[in-house]
Amino acid sequence: MRRYRRKTGRRRGEGPRRSQRHPGGRRPGENRTREQILDAARECFAERGYDATSVRRIAETAGVDQALVHHFYGTKEKLFLNALEIPMRMPEALAEAAAGDRAGLGSRIVLAHLRVWEDASARPAMMTTLRSAATHRSAAAVLRDYATETIREALGKVITGEDAELRVALIATTLIGLSLTRYLVRLDPVPEVSPGELAARLGPVIDLHLDPADPAA
Amino acid sequence: MRRYRRKTGRRRGEGPRRSQRHPGGRRPGENRTREQILDAARECFAERGYDATSVRRIAETAGVDQALVHHFYGTKEKLFLNALEIPMRMPEALAEAAAGDRAGLGSRIVLAHLRVWEDASARPAMMTTLRSAATHRSAAAVLRDYATETIREALGKVITGEDAELRVALIATTLIGLSLTRYLVRLDPVPEVSPGELAARLGPVIDLHLDPADPAA
Repeated sequence: MRRYRRKTGRRRGEGPRRSQRHPGGRRPGENRTREQILDAARECFAERGYDATSVRRIAETAGVDQALVHHFYGTKEKLFLNALEIPMRMPEALAEAAAGDRAGLGSRIVLAHLRVWEDASARPAMMTTLRSAATHRSAAAVLRDYATETIREALGKVITGEDAELRVALIATTLIGLSLTRYLVRLDPVPEVSPGELAARLGPVIDLHLDPADPAA
Repeated sequence: MRRYRRKTGRRRGEGPRRSQRHPGGRRPGENRTREQILDAARECFAERGYDATSVRRIAETAGVDQALVHHFYGTKEKLFLNALEIPMRMPEALAEAAAGDRAGLGSRIVLAHLRVWEDASARPAMMTTLRSAATHRSAAAVLRDYATETIREALGKVITGEDAELRVALIATTLIGLSLTRYLVRLDPVPEVSPGELAARLGPVIDLHLDPADPAA
């Protein structure tokens, strides 16, 4: 949980993180500058990927001083997560899926995952994340921490026991693998199949990892 | 099957493909030239990825005429598959796994897949393939044709019915997803888990896709 809080803690109502706090409180116009930086970051990451994008370039694109970018967002890694918005939606979607009965939980998780991905406004950013993670070590670190912590956070009550960590990772493997073949590799006929059909096929797989002893529970 | 034969037909004992046949039979030194081209291709693809590598650059690296590369290997796509050697090992490994009883088939498939990946001499090339497929449309086309045809070839007798194509694709999704989180994204603890443990966890998943109605068969 530590890593998760470190990276996406703002959503937990803990208030702004240290690097985002302005000594004298937020000044007028600060929000606009923050948005400009995020827009510039999205543009740069989408164009050149994670590794080839420097904080300096983002600052130049936004027309602000590099120190201001660090002041508002801390590291490049944190800026990446903030810029891509994905982290903001997926945890909510998974938590909502997890809230119901144990029966059908696997299917609901697959549907929640696909709902976030199917959103045309979010997909380019999610594809950038996955592509960067497949090609760059530092972006892989961002994705793996985010993916496991998001699932652990949403399903922590359901997944217990000594092998909980492996089961969380295998659920992440299933969902990431699905995104890879549906949206990036476009492995026929996965991109053409409805979310409902995929949930019917992969829901039982998630159920297997949720509870290996009794997948039908 | 057509696509598969087109790309990896040489292994099926059909003799050399049209583009590889020399009008007057193989000349002395031809094999050495072919190996030089493959070495150059491996070097170029590993360094710059699939899309950024041109046949011209491979020819230059090998010190031969570009026309000779096309003459021996046809398209860049075919050269890629030949250079990376993966296609030569994975089909054999999967076919071997498929040869035994239906019981335990899922686990044997996972083990066969991992055995090919665990070979340190093959892994860099396999990582290049997966990375290229995640980032470049044309490399994705190579991977998706290869993956589905390899699995269909090995498991064609087991996977029947109207939804056979989707089930083949979901098995490919499982194996590709596993490779992604074990070797590229390194999603903890997947890289540390033994092949046997992964086979025990993911074998039942493959079994589900092999036979959705009766996964325990």
